[in-house]
Amino acid sequence: MIEQFNRDGTLRHLITLANLNRTQLNALLDHAETYLVGHAHYAPREPRLLGRTVALLFFEPSTRTRVSFHLAATRLSADVVTLDGDASSRVKGETLLDTVRTLEAMHTDVFVVRTAEAGIPALLAGHIGRGKALINAGEAHCEHPTQGLLDVLTIRQHKPDIRNLCVAIVGDIRHSRVARSAAQALGILDVGELRLVGPEPLLPDTNEFDGAVRYAELEPGLRDADVIMALRIQRERMRKEAGIPSNDAYFKRFGLTAERLKAARGDVIVMHPGPINREVEISSAVADGPHSVIGRQVTNGVAVRMAVLARIAEGLSGTP
Amino acid sequence: MIEQFNRDGTLRHLITLANLNRTQLNALLDHAETYLVGHAHYAPREPRLLGRTVALLFFEPSTRTRVSFHLAATRLSADVVTLDGDASSRVKGETLLDTVRTLEAMHTDVFVVRTAEAGIPALLAGHIGRGKALINAGEAHCEHPTQGLLDVLTIRQHKPDIRNLCVAIVGDIRHSRVARSAAQALGILDVGELRLVGPEPLLPDTNEFDGAVRYAELEPGLRDADVIMALRIQRERMRKEAGIPSNDAYFKRFGLTAERLKAARGDVIVMHPGPINREVEISSAVADGPHSVIGRQVTNGVAVRMAVLARIAEGLSGTP
Amino acid sequence: MIEQFNRDGTLRHLITLANLNRTQLNALLDHAETYLVGHAHYAPREPRLLGRTVALLFFEPSTRTRVSFHLAATRLSADVVTLDGDASSRVKGETLLDTVRTLEAMHTDVFVVRTAEAGIPALLAGHIGRGKALINAGEAHCEHPTQGLLDVLTIRQHKPDIRNLCVAIVGDIRHSRVARSAAQALGILDVGELRLVGPEPLLPDTNEFDGAVRYAELEPGLRDADVIMALRIQRERMRKEAGIPSNDAYFKRFGLTAERLKAARGDVIVMHPGPINREVEISSAVADGPHSVIGRQVTNGVAVRMAVLARIAEGLSGTP
Repeated sequence: MIEQFNRDGTLRHLITLANLNRTQLNALLDHAETYLVGHAHYAPREPRLLGRTVALLFFEPSTRTRVSFHLAATRLSADVVTLDGDASSRVKGETLLDTVRTLEAMHTDVFVVRTAEAGIPALLAGHIGRGKALINAGEAHCEHPTQGLLDVLTIRQHKPDIRNLCVAIVGDIRHSRVARSAAQALGILDVGELRLVGPEPLLPDTNEFDGAVRYAELEPGLRDADVIMALRIQRERMRKEAGIPSNDAYFKRFGLTAERLKAARGDVIVMHPGPINREVEISSAVADGPHSVIGRQVTNGVAVRMAVLARIAEGLSGTP
Repeated sequence: MIEQFNRDGTLRHLITLANLNRTQLNALLDHAETYLVGHAHYAPREPRLLGRTVALLFFEPSTRTRVSFHLAATRLSADVVTLDGDASSRVKGETLLDTVRTLEAMHTDVFVVRTAEAGIPALLAGHIGRGKALINAGEAHCEHPTQGLLDVLTIRQHKPDIRNLCVAIVGDIRHSRVARSAAQALGILDVGELRLVGPEPLLPDTNEFDGAVRYAELEPGLRDADVIMALRIQRERMRKEAGIPSNDAYFKRFGLTAERLKAARGDVIVMHPGPINREVEISSAVADGPHSVIGRQVTNGVAVRMAVLARIAEGLSGTP
Repeated sequence: MIEQFNRDGTLRHLITLANLNRTQLNALLDHAETYLVGHAHYAPREPRLLGRTVALLFFEPSTRTRVSFHLAATRLSADVVTLDGDASSRVKGETLLDTVRTLEAMHTDVFVVRTAEAGIPALLAGHIGRGKALINAGEAHCEHPTQGLLDVLTIRQHKPDIRNLCVAIVGDIRHSRVARSAAQALGILDVGELRLVGPEPLLPDTNEFDGAVRYAELEPGLRDADVIMALRIQRERMRKEAGIPSNDAYFKRFGLTAERLKAARGDVIVMHPGPINREVEISSAVADGPHSVIGRQVTNGVAVRMAVLARIAEGLSGTP
């Protein structure tokens, strides 16, 4: 297991939320709040990463997370280089580890890594030198720590008393890094009740998501929920693993509609990590309606990534 | 119809040139001139967009327009993010509108959009919030307003008395957003005479290009012209819609050669939006010759885009 | 032949190292050293290219060289635009020369060009205007001058007495621009002995690499060497042109192993331009072992490119 904190308590890497304590997690969320001014704007640019180089290594396609990290790093005044998945070094078959070693030799300070293979972020973090940092930007079905942070920040902003909340995650929980990181963060904050709602074959193994309650039907899963997090589904997986033949069939069973939302609390908030499949996971009326906080999640995403980068900046070696 | 100006008269969006008046158009051209120092250099960088984020959404391939906007935004000190047409969010099937909503939630201030589909820029502009702006960077066959601006700026620099000019546009006018935006701009400036020259099937419908004179043969179309604008042709369309079997055949009928230029005024200027097909629309002797102002058009393009961005900056909301 | 120096002795272009003298070469290496602070960090950012535009035209895939130039230009405060090989203007068939002309009209100051075709960098340099510069970032099998510079800088750092060194280059010398540029630089610095080691069909013609000694077997080629430079091999070429059927077969004959290194000097340094094919050109034990200076080459690469850009900045025209 990679040690995520330096001896002096500063953040070194962010690979997983699993071993953060409540104080550490809340400190990151509090720091993120300082970048948000009145919900409508970000605070002015900070020079914390001036002269530092942040490399975005996205070995899996992503727009929103890549752009979110890009803007977060830029707003902290970093230099940013981007390597995409099908980018040139991979054409020549260079290994991931050698790519990271090369970028490190060019004095990259922070590596932001997204990968479809489990274990890669920790593996890479274990090989980079002292005074350098790595942030997991999404790893297979396992981890997506900055997504977990932005999700609990969004929940905290709307419903600060997390110990008394009922949160329902809806969709393909089994293959979802978003669900895992959210569940970790909610667990650290002692969430009142966590529900996992989805087709039976797409619920996780019972040794995972400790303490969560499982529902194979939507309506009972939503009853009196304070927070509903819809997950993005993959059509092929839905068909092959859950036997749900079409997007319409999924929407009929698990799609969030205004009608179904009535089972939840009157002030329920509805979340989605995006990009949303309209009329599949969620109706447009709900996605764009008064309960939706999907836009806030995106805004919080940049702030959370700025906070993680800012914290990590404290432990970087050398002068920038 | 999207309102392009704020109530206080500042520019909000630039979707089309169609409803600008002469004062507004000339003000943009005058502003662009301030970024040009003695034809050879741009004025020093301005901080007008410092802390602002400009997103380049190019859902159709383009080098020159994308790089031109990128440099314009950078020289006004903006942060720039780029999303290409085959980029990752499209891979996942996200709608254009949701992409824009997401970037807006990350506090993008200005969207620069190029698209092969008509109506998209206005549609997106209608959905983005107050204090945000959208610039049309090329829309189907309909609009390319910054191209129209750079074209009339180039003409004005060489031949300021536009009311007495004869301008001939040569090529596939029917499918050309460049021709439409140039015609709009020239119309606003009361051009003396506008000629549309091209193969009959590629001339526009008669309810378009009000007041323009049509020519299905090159020579009479060029006679005594002050300005000739060649358009880029697409070989397949030329073959299928105009029955012109090859590039050579097109060059024989409509290619601009030094010989044919003799029909025009002695001080005629020759323009092309680029990229040029040498020995198809234009001979190299003409493209690189004394009448060509093609390089000036490119230089003016950055200045015009800086002017549009600078004007729009005045109406952006919040502190940067 | 393109003149690489201005009349006042400042560097204008860097197309080849071939016609540099020892003073000029050492001045570039000395300048590069100023960007390296204690092997571990780069010196703080310099404003030498503030307001200047550097265009990276990579018409052949490359990660490390592109990122290296990008960081070098950024650390000198330049604006950087990137055009990749399959980028949009090529989609539309624009010629390379027209792309360069367009970027020049947008006031690009420095062109960094990588191309698989020989002669392109000199051709383009011959067409760009006064006060603009071009740097060759890799040209067919012919030239890779900044690689040559970083290679001799790395050698000089470890073994300053180059006149008394024996340097062995191992691999497909015939098709290697890395070997050619290194040999040029070493020749200028009067290297003691240069050996070319590789399969017979992949050794260069005898009218090239003047004064070098050729070895078709590895062990005698390495004997008492001070410096070993392994080259990256291409499997298909190895198979077709050298009759070596597999990576394993190549490794057996020419792979650098700890065992084979014993033939060389005890303090031999091992170099590779990267990306490395582990267990093909070089064993992991050697690549990551005490003799390897591969990481230093990468670090030096950024410093050398900063030095070249900084020297070129002195001759750029206009105010930035």
